[in-house]
Amino acid sequence: MSKVKIFLEEKDMPRAWYNIQADMPNLPRPAMNPDTKEPVGPGDLAPIFPMALIMQEVTTERWIEIPDEVMEIYKLWRPSPLIRARRLEKALDTPAKIYYKHEGVSPAGSHKLNTAVPQVYYNKIEGMKRLTTETGAGQWGIALSQACNFFGLECIVYMVKISFQQKPYRRTMMEAFGARMYASPSDNTDTGRQILREDPDNMGSLGMAISEAVEDAIGRDDTHYALGSVLNHVLLHQTVIGLEAKKQLEMVEEYPDVVIACCGGGSNFGGIAFPFAYDKIKKESKVRLVAVEPSACPTLTRGHHGYDFGDVAGFTPLLCMYSLGKDFMPPGIHAGGLRYHGASPLVSQLVKDGIAEAQSYGQTAVFDSGVLFARCEGIIPAPESSHAIHGAVKEALAAKEAGEARTILFNLSGHGLLDLPSYEFYLNQKLVDQPLSEESLKQALAGLPQI
Amino acid sequence: MSKVKIFLEEKDMPRAWYNIQADMPNLPRPAMNPDTKEPVGPGDLAPIFPMALIMQEVTTERWIEIPDEVMEIYKLWRPSPLIRARRLEKALDTPAKIYYKHEGVSPAGSHKLNTAVPQVYYNKIEGMKRLTTETGAGQWGIALSQACNFFGLECIVYMVKISFQQKPYRRTMMEAFGARMYASPSDNTDTGRQILREDPDNMGSLGMAISEAVEDAIGRDDTHYALGSVLNHVLLHQTVIGLEAKKQLEMVEEYPDVVIACCGGGSNFGGIAFPFAYDKIKKESKVRLVAVEPSACPTLTRGHHGYDFGDVAGFTPLLCMYSLGKDFMPPGIHAGGLRYHGASPLVSQLVKDGIAEAQSYGQTAVFDSGVLFARCEGIIPAPESSHAIHGAVKEALAAKEAGEARTILFNLSGHGLLDLPSYEFYLNQKLVDQPLSEESLKQALAGLPQI
Repeated sequence: MSKVKIFLEEKDMPRAWYNIQADMPNLPRPAMNPDTKEPVGPGDLAPIFPMALIMQEVTTERWIEIPDEVMEIYKLWRPSPLIRARRLEKALDTPAKIYYKHEGVSPAGSHKLNTAVPQVYYNKIEGMKRLTTETGAGQWGIALSQACNFFGLECIVYMVKISFQQKPYRRTMMEAFGARMYASPSDNTDTGRQILREDPDNMGSLGMAISEAVEDAIGRDDTHYALGSVLNHVLLHQTVIGLEAKKQLEMVEEYPDVVIACCGGGSNFGGIAFPFAYDKIKKESKVRLVAVEPSACPTLTRGHHGYDFGDVAGFTPLLCMYSLGKDFMPPGIHAGGLRYHGASPLVSQLVKDGIAEAQSYGQTAVFDSGVLFARCEGIIPAPESSHAIHGAVKEALAAKEAGEARTILFNLSGHGLLDLPSYEFYLNQKLVDQPLSEESLKQALAGLPQI
Repeated sequence: MSKVKIFLEEKDMPRAWYNIQADMPNLPRPAMNPDTKEPVGPGDLAPIFPMALIMQEVTTERWIEIPDEVMEIYKLWRPSPLIRARRLEKALDTPAKIYYKHEGVSPAGSHKLNTAVPQVYYNKIEGMKRLTTETGAGQWGIALSQACNFFGLECIVYMVKISFQQKPYRRTMMEAFGARMYASPSDNTDTGRQILREDPDNMGSLGMAISEAVEDAIGRDDTHYALGSVLNHVLLHQTVIGLEAKKQLEMVEEYPDVVIACCGGGSNFGGIAFPFAYDKIKKESKVRLVAVEPSACPTLTRGHHGYDFGDVAGFTPLLCMYSLGKDFMPPGIHAGGLRYHGASPLVSQLVKDGIAEAQSYGQTAVFDSGVLFARCEGIIPAPESSHAIHGAVKEALAAKEAGEARTILFNLSGHGLLDLPSYEFYLNQKLVDQPLSEESLKQALAGLPQI
């Protein structure tokens, strides 16, 4: 009988993260202070991030050692299994081999914990007692709550009010790990109080929640702020995914023809793809690296590459990336984690340079593939991860068409057990695609800063 | 650094289930036809179960080979990891070593899939096209839905109406795997229609749902019924848990001083404990086998050992077991899977003969330990499984008191991601203990059949 799961031993876990800034043919242009138009320096970021993370943001060292304290926590769920999706292959009647890396086994249910743990660790050794963050759908908030709990820091989460009310399971999970929760806009910050004075019924947005979290952090010496995607140090931490996957594929004497992940801010795509991008940059492989995004929020496929703000309020430095414009409001698709106007500068640069590529799909096709995957493999995928699944299904069918036994690797970034209401929508045939129209795209891009 | 997870290779998976009926000093008295007072024969059960399962119910062969088709599905999640709870040990400051078997990694989120898969398989090879069952909280319904989906059988689930309305996540999960769901009482059976005529607002009970599922199965030649606990063949299938755990402990040169599991119908307790009970019966070990139940439904600790019906309606054969009486209505504690008036005849006999022992605890203490475990190990446990955790915590503290480095093994029968509303009750300090009073116990036992 055939082997299904490929487990790495704990002793063979990667001991360092891979920093793709060491090897990129072109680095992204640096983050810029919007007022001075000068590159942002470490001092600009020190009020909200610890120096260790600020240095990881800019270093070109190839390998960054993973601290022992982080390794010990990683071992609660890492190395994550690599699984051969044999039943999915059979259902598609494809000669392709489909492997997936299962990041849903983390206690947080997603890959987000890979970066939450080191972020909290570096803040702790710099003496921080509290960390603030924002969360929309809740995956990042859960990860940071757990990481803070593991290291004994207080975690303050500003959760977009509409999600706070509509996603009680995720809220309770954060509370179970001891997080202090605020429905944003809240009366805990000037920003929140101001908004509530003008509009007491405001249901919040990610942009407002970021503003509240940053204000809370800046106001106190014992407090920093943490971000769950987009930035270089976040993607750095996520490379454990791809490093493990590479070793696991070697164990079964495989190398992928294509590596696929969904892409919102870009951290799970970067995490699995960067270690393979290294091979491609070094001309040792022709592996295709495919970022899959929703057609409702097609940042990499249809956005503009240049400077834009990372947040809606315009508090952050300007980042050089693909963007639809910070004021772009994506429709309320069920993959909440992919509703972001920008994309990681590192991922954007790789796409711009032709090292990675991007595809976009509508959510009904994505859910079709997600449910097919669930019925074959048993795992309910997160709606975000179902974008990667759909990309893999497309590739497997193309391999069948071509009659080629291609090897496909995709990242299952998280499970969907707390997203079951979205599946109810799908099963009741209430899902609709809302692809970005040419008109809306034009409007969205008009909001880009003039630089 | 220390090893946390002990993985077994797929090639070392047990190839046979262990049948404790081969080795028990005393077998339970046989199931009895309530009308004739004669032992039940295979023919009595044939309308609802396939012959392979009926034979597994009564055989005294020690090893029952696991079919290849079942092994292939088991490999989607088995062997499940054995994990050393180092952070929990540290939090308790105990010299004890605490290991847990993580059955929550199954696609169904609990151990229930271990028996759902072979039950569907044996029904399929006997030509069945449909399987019916009942579900209360929903764990068993999810497992049978998934197993039917894997083998292409139709699954019909009668879900207690109050749960159908209050647990939409579990309902949606069953639907995602293609199950046909009925809120019970339904208008799909005579039983249901009769109840609804008398009381259109009836919110259902497990007893009514069983009656509907059995009626549906008896009425059609292509349909059987499936049960998720209590019966011998169910516990047989669950012994994969204990067989794997034994091998995994051997890999780290350990043997448990005590094995702990929660106990409702008894299948997860039997699953982990029976392979160790073998050693004890053969005088090769003095391992303690501890079944933990809620003080609100203390079947093994305070029930009566003798014949009783397995269901509320009195449709089933009489089983020789510990029982609180089929009419006993346990309070609405959050561990819905432990709200059962009886206990497996095999487990009951082992407790009666002093080979296993039982403990009961109130749910506030159980949730205290469940949340402590979550904060240490990262995993939100099912409220049922938290009973085992609480038992393990008690043992670890006793080891500390005694200054002994005892080895504790417990079964984490499932995760609690779909039980988060219960955690919200706990965190808001709304949970109360409802231990069974002497008066209620007297009343409950008065309902036992006079045989």
